[in-house]
Amino acid sequence: MTKLGLPVPPGFTIVTKTCIEFLKSGEKLTDELIEEMKVALNKVEKKAGKVFGDPEHPLLVSVRSGAKISMPGMMDTVLNVGLNPKTMEGLIKITNHERFVKDSYRRLITMFADVVCGLDISKFENKLEEVKTANKLSFDYELTPELLDGLIVDFLLIFKELYGSPFPEDPMTQLLMTIKAVFKSWNNKRAIAYRKFEGIPDDIGTAVNVQTMVFGNYDENSGTGVLFTRNPATGEKALYGEYLMQAQGEDVVAGIRTPVSISELKKQLPKIYSSLEKFALTLEKHYKDMQDIEFTIESGKLYILQTRAGKRTGTASAKIALDLLSEGLISKEEVIMRVTPRDLESSMFPSIVWANEKSHDYFNIEDFETKLHKHSIDELTKEAKISHAEIIGEGLPAGPGAAAGHIIFDSDLAEQLAKGQKEPNFDVKLWKTVDGKKVPKLILIKKETSPEDFHGMVASEGILTMTGGLTSHAALVGRQIGKRVIVGASNSKMDLLGHNLRTSDGRILSEGDVVTLEVFDHARVYLGSLPIYTPNELPETFLTILDYCDEIAQIKVRTNADKRLDAETAMKFKAVGIGLARTEHQFFDALDLVQEMILADTKSERIETLNKMLSLQQKDFEDLFEVLNGKPATIRLLDPPLHEFLPKELEIRQRAWLEMLNPRQTEENLRILRKVIYYQEANPMLGLRGCRLSLLFPEITEMQVRAVIQAALAVHDRGIVVHPEIMIPLVGFKEEFTKSREIVDRIAKLVFEEKGKQITYHVGTMIEIPRAALTADEIAAGELGADFFSFGTNDLHQMTLGFSRDDVGKFLPYYVDEHIIPSDPFQTIDVDGVGKLMDTCVQLGRKSASESEKYLKVGICGEQGGDPHSIEFCYKIGLDYVSCSPFRVPIARLAAAQATLKFPKPAKKYLKSN
Amino acid sequence: MTKLGLPVPPGFTIVTKTCIEFLKSGEKLTDELIEEMKVALNKVEKKAGKVFGDPEHPLLVSVRSGAKISMPGMMDTVLNVGLNPKTMEGLIKITNHERFVKDSYRRLITMFADVVCGLDISKFENKLEEVKTANKLSFDYELTPELLDGLIVDFLLIFKELYGSPFPEDPMTQLLMTIKAVFKSWNNKRAIAYRKFEGIPDDIGTAVNVQTMVFGNYDENSGTGVLFTRNPATGEKALYGEYLMQAQGEDVVAGIRTPVSISELKKQLPKIYSSLEKFALTLEKHYKDMQDIEFTIESGKLYILQTRAGKRTGTASAKIALDLLSEGLISKEEVIMRVTPRDLESSMFPSIVWANEKSHDYFNIEDFETKLHKHSIDELTKEAKISHAEIIGEGLPAGPGAAAGHIIFDSDLAEQLAKGQKEPNFDVKLWKTVDGKKVPKLILIKKETSPEDFHGMVASEGILTMTGGLTSHAALVGRQIGKRVIVGASNSKMDLLGHNLRTSDGRILSEGDVVTLEVFDHARVYLGSLPIYTPNELPETFLTILDYCDEIAQIKVRTNADKRLDAETAMKFKAVGIGLARTEHQFFDALDLVQEMILADTKSERIETLNKMLSLQQKDFEDLFEVLNGKPATIRLLDPPLHEFLPKELEIRQRAWLEMLNPRQTEENLRILRKVIYYQEANPMLGLRGCRLSLLFPEITEMQVRAVIQAALAVHDRGIVVHPEIMIPLVGFKEEFTKSREIVDRIAKLVFEEKGKQITYHVGTMIEIPRAALTADEIAAGELGADFFSFGTNDLHQMTLGFSRDDVGKFLPYYVDEHIIPSDPFQTIDVDGVGKLMDTCVQLGRKSASESEKYLKVGICGEQGGDPHSIEFCYKIGLDYVSCSPFRVPIARLAAAQATLKFPKPAKKYLKSN
Repeated sequence: MTKLGLPVPPGFTIVTKTCIEFLKSGEKLTDELIEEMKVALNKVEKKAGKVFGDPEHPLLVSVRSGAKISMPGMMDTVLNVGLNPKTMEGLIKITNHERFVKDSYRRLITMFADVVCGLDISKFENKLEEVKTANKLSFDYELTPELLDGLIVDFLLIFKELYGSPFPEDPMTQLLMTIKAVFKSWNNKRAIAYRKFEGIPDDIGTAVNVQTMVFGNYDENSGTGVLFTRNPATGEKALYGEYLMQAQGEDVVAGIRTPVSISELKKQLPKIYSSLEKFALTLEKHYKDMQDIEFTIESGKLYILQTRAGKRTGTASAKIALDLLSEGLISKEEVIMRVTPRDLESSMFPSIVWANEKSHDYFNIEDFETKLHKHSIDELTKEAKISHAEIIGEGLPAGPGAAAGHIIFDSDLAEQLAKGQKEPNFDVKLWKTVDGKKVPKLILIKKETSPEDFHGMVASEGILTMTGGLTSHAALVGRQIGKRVIVGASNSKMDLLGHNLRTSDGRILSEGDVVTLEVFDHARVYLGSLPIYTPNELPETFLTILDYCDEIAQIKVRTNADKRLDAETAMKFKAVGIGLARTEHQFFDALDLVQEMILADTKSERIETLNKMLSLQQKDFEDLFEVLNGKPATIRLLDPPLHEFLPKELEIRQRAWLEMLNPRQTEENLRILRKVIYYQEANPMLGLRGCRLSLLFPEITEMQVRAVIQAALAVHDRGIVVHPEIMIPLVGFKEEFTKSREIVDRIAKLVFEEKGKQITYHVGTMIEIPRAALTADEIAAGELGADFFSFGTNDLHQMTLGFSRDDVGKFLPYYVDEHIIPSDPFQTIDVDGVGKLMDTCVQLGRKSASESEKYLKVGICGEQGGDPHSIEFCYKIGLDYVSCSPFRVPIARLAAAQATLKFPKPAKKYLKSN
Repeated sequence: MTKLGLPVPPGFTIVTKTCIEFLKSGEKLTDELIEEMKVALNKVEKKAGKVFGDPEHPLLVSVRSGAKISMPGMMDTVLNVGLNPKTMEGLIKITNHERFVKDSYRRLITMFADVVCGLDISKFENKLEEVKTANKLSFDYELTPELLDGLIVDFLLIFKELYGSPFPEDPMTQLLMTIKAVFKSWNNKRAIAYRKFEGIPDDIGTAVNVQTMVFGNYDENSGTGVLFTRNPATGEKALYGEYLMQAQGEDVVAGIRTPVSISELKKQLPKIYSSLEKFALTLEKHYKDMQDIEFTIESGKLYILQTRAGKRTGTASAKIALDLLSEGLISKEEVIMRVTPRDLESSMFPSIVWANEKSHDYFNIEDFETKLHKHSIDELTKEAKISHAEIIGEGLPAGPGAAAGHIIFDSDLAEQLAKGQKEPNFDVKLWKTVDGKKVPKLILIKKETSPEDFHGMVASEGILTMTGGLTSHAALVGRQIGKRVIVGASNSKMDLLGHNLRTSDGRILSEGDVVTLEVFDHARVYLGSLPIYTPNELPETFLTILDYCDEIAQIKVRTNADKRLDAETAMKFKAVGIGLARTEHQFFDALDLVQEMILADTKSERIETLNKMLSLQQKDFEDLFEVLNGKPATIRLLDPPLHEFLPKELEIRQRAWLEMLNPRQTEENLRILRKVIYYQEANPMLGLRGCRLSLLFPEITEMQVRAVIQAALAVHDRGIVVHPEIMIPLVGFKEEFTKSREIVDRIAKLVFEEKGKQITYHVGTMIEIPRAALTADEIAAGELGADFFSFGTNDLHQMTLGFSRDDVGKFLPYYVDEHIIPSDPFQTIDVDGVGKLMDTCVQLGRKSASESEKYLKVGICGEQGGDPHSIEFCYKIGLDYVSCSPFRVPIARLAAAQATLKFPKPAKKYLKSN
């Protein structure tokens, strides 16, 4: 900023390299450095016309960190360095502001104790409160110089007691200690964690900025403020911000006095305002982004203290980026890098209107949604009271957005209420209108959901389950149908007790009570109804940016969709195909038939039932092919173990107990029970499922393949291009794939012959068993090897890490908190472990396929396929596409483009795809 | 043999290279080959004084395979090639043996149809039976020339009907087709499978031997026989074998006429006998092994047709090898390679005295074991009747040996009966004497066993479970205490119906019925009591050979032992340490305390109970250290999930139902139920266990480490050297290891300080999660990295292959049968998949450790550690030791030496171990 000619208080910077040297060499400041620093300080003294430590004209400085990449709040700052009893006297003489100077000294002691010495500062705070109470004072600035004198004596005593030696009065000692502290803060726990999370390297270090202090509380012509060069909420191009006269930065933040809008400054100090306007323009042009500027006016003179890219809402982010593009400041590529997946997410899904998200303060507006029709959010929030929201539970974020509603524990009842077929027996506060009827908004709460809860989930605004992970039924299905979903809440001590919900804090809620779910990076349950803003659809700005993304992205985005509706949603979001259609979801729709099929004692009985299922499956596939209209669809053959379609042993036994109140079972129960027990497994994840099932019961595969091929031919007859890709799940051995492919090819040939026509199809496999990745070369080898791979990263993580996603709830949160693992592997690919395996797999598979002149298409269809970090990794190892749930498609498209821009050269692909 | 000067019927050999060329070039015999063959045939004709295809002096030949490595029964042979109506007439004229010649032609047609044309020969057999029945004949040789003429006509018709073209009468066509068939038989299914199993390369091919036919049924001075140069049952150095005059080889095998002992030949044809003696010696000297020789006498002239290394019993194998060593024929190294793990196994464990193991015919001797005290097996088997044993079930071979006993379904009852505390309510046929009391021998049958069945298992001779795999409780514990164990029998359709056993063939057995278990490579249940021979201890010969093994083996053998008795057994078998002491087995002994600990609601309650467990654990460790007497012991911290120590939900609920006949639960039941439900897991294998448990409940680890260190110090005080190695289970992330090691080091330091003395200990980890193998370099890195790795190959296979060992029963047998996988990975390491991972792990870990100047010791403690194929692999990738159950130690020592001899150069080890 100094170079740009802006009025910055004089200072100097110790560069990041010094930090690294300092940390490596046993945390010592070298004599050389101290000498250089003194020379620099000397220059500053000359510019400021003051001398550091001089009792007559004392120079005070601030010491701030300055990392290459902004790490807000992670590192330390100390103000007023250079004050001691002598310089304090000098400063009082010059300024004639005894209270201000003594207050600054008091603050220095506290800040130094905290930041430099790492002491517990509650004793200082208690003493301050004690003095204020004794003197019946409400505000710090009411402390008289005399009271401050007393406090300073007390503070110095406390400091000595806690630290073991007295507060350093020598200004140079203060300065050197502070610089060391800032350097060291590079390695404090929260900074390390932040870097790990954001992927910032550990070895770049922080700079230290030593700068002349200026004071906004100097006199009545002084003040301080914060300025955004554009509106951070909407992106509108106009100065935005607030200021306070006779105040220091702290006072603005503390919220004791209400700051004034920056537009007032235009009237109050027009010259200052027009300077600010000019500086804002300069800074925006220089940094090519909206700026968040801190300024101070000392005795009528404007100083710019700091500038950085301003935080903004998702909507603003997109608007600003596009405006900067049309202003010629940035390129299309830069536009793409300017918006974050989180920006997009918050613009897609309903979210709570927070006053302060961090402290959980919200704008308390009654009947928010109705009023929103007449007013803008901005207008509404102005008139709102601020209230504090209470968290009553947390869980895993399974379906993003926010939703408020009445809690309900029964899916049948939920449906009846939501359809207005039944009167609620609770006082309804939240209504919605469905087909002209006013019905209550509901939040469905279950221990875990099963396919039998589907109608209840559809009927509700949000779903909350006690157990289960991010890939449990509730998570998968809820996300698929676009609901807010929180799973695994029992880890926050929430619990279901019959038809009551015990909250984390021990409260008991019952049917009809109102809660609000908020699900983004976190997943929280709040008591009562919070105001929710629901964007109607993806803003135009984002649609434009996403089109830019598609031009650039070198990895494509498909979707996971089982049904027509899912597929339609995904096509609207411009997915380029289906990466995973799970056929078992179709099975759940025909549960009676499936159970009949499983209970069949002979193969011929089984085939009979399978024949009945054929047309149902075929219809679903026809739907998908129609919606896709020429785009490819990867259809996975039946994957889950058969017992997932059967009731649980306990259920049957209990049914018998309840029905008969004696230990005998009915004949029918016994029949089912025998099958249930037969199919029970100790570890179903590692049991009889996937291709193992289709090799043992080839008739199931035969039916499914017939359904796919018949559907493809039927849709093809209607003039629509079809690209079926049949995917064999759970392959671990080459022979499993070969034998499964034989069945597929045999049936396809048969159907082609029957119908007298044919289409092209591909057969590939899911890579979800570590062994498959290790032997990918075998599986992809030869003419009859796999045509494509798709990483089933859910199972691949389960097996490679030994983490059952249904059971990790007891330790995974602890692991993430304690940094035993960097992040939840069911959200973000474990790059160091599973990632290594994936990379090996792609290389082995592609190389082997290329030896048969084939290009092996590779994608990912696990949950992680919608996660930006994971998409970046997938791009880097050369995958052709990611596939994610329909509502994640826009985020994935953005992430795909960003990855391409960040890493222009991905892995070697052997043969080029056509 | 011809070169050795032995009287071999003239012939020639087409070498193996030709076979490979034939198979590669579309299965065509080249003109060049045919020419060469004709030249060779010409030479044979000259030697034999006969001409192939000549109607006057026809030469007949046999065509046999001859692979480099003997593959008994795998490949094909055709005799009497060259016969047709014309040569038949000529042969009759010369020999004047019309019946013999026509019978030979009849046989040629059948054999040719079978071997060369691959036809179903049942029609030939039926026709033969039909003719015999119609003429009231019992034996083939009773067929008159006239009947044979009719049969030949019929056979030729059948042949044409089945094959589509007539039987080839041209001798050269017969010969070429036969040669082709033998070449092709290299790739028949059973030969491929055999090679895969035995590790014989696929590209070495078979030779074809074309040899002049000689006839043992030529006249009364003709005969045929089989000779072993030493006794194949005992190894005794004396000719052994049998012969038949006026017979062909087939007749000896068919068992219609009883062959005569070879000693009779000495009296009957002393010259021939002394020739045989001379030839036997020549062949033994040449082949340096006991030979199994086929000979034929044609009109008083002796021919040696074939010789090969003779099959022998385990005991004989060892004796012969050592005798050959002392005779100076072979070296110590060769002795080691001469005995097989199977030889050793059958000499260690009880086995059934079979007359013919393949056809399940046994020597039916009443009260076998009592009589055995007075007679040798040989004597006994001479007087025995032969009976046929009936298989009534099969399972997985979990504990080797054979055992007969009365079936029993209850562990308490088993103990009471075995201690003579209760009178059996069945008719006892099998007794044993315990502490002077005669008590019944028992076979315990359960769905699956749990720790509560331990006393019942001890009381029984054998254990049979319906479910569970090779590493289920029954398998692990049963093997550990040296019982015969069969698990997973329900896959053979055996089933438990209350206190009845349904057999595979639908029979129902009840308490007291007698069955015999036989467990080696297979695991069979036979109806009734079969004679069992129990070796008292490992024969002296094997002890000697095992000592030779230890001199040579470059990979050591430790044992898996949890208790003093296990450790003592293993030390007797010369294990060099404990590779795995599972501390949870100690927990099962204190189940009440463990449950109390788990049910504790607070950490302090938990610590209180843990303190009570401390002395129990410490005592067990002191026992182990004492027995080891300076050898190292790897002690694994608690591994299984806590719910393994709790009753099952269903049990508790049922208990409530049964106790109260209403759906309410008692308070105590509810308390347990809540915990049980809390700790329930969908996939316990991948859940809260191993180090995850000890990071969440560090107090458990603290107690265990304290017990280990206190035990070590106490035993050290008694003047015994101790080498504790503490092993952290289930590590997947570096941080898991680091944090666990911190606990171990902290507690060890504390105990050292308390006791004022210290010892050396090591901390390492089990490699059982694929991610650990993939990131072995991280886990082994640095001073505080792992000191050792031990492959937990049970879990490593479960996760890498996605095979739950408790659930694979439904598909693994099918997979092995269909060659989808080469063998059961829970017995033999999956070299291509898991093996790759293990190799990577060892390389990464050792390299990383070497960078900190450390040598990383690596072993294996999974079940596969006792499997010879796996031991070979472990040696090849450079492991330092294998660890197996005590009774597998001798087999592992043998396998270790054999691996070393087979592959003199194993993997690079980075730094040498001390």
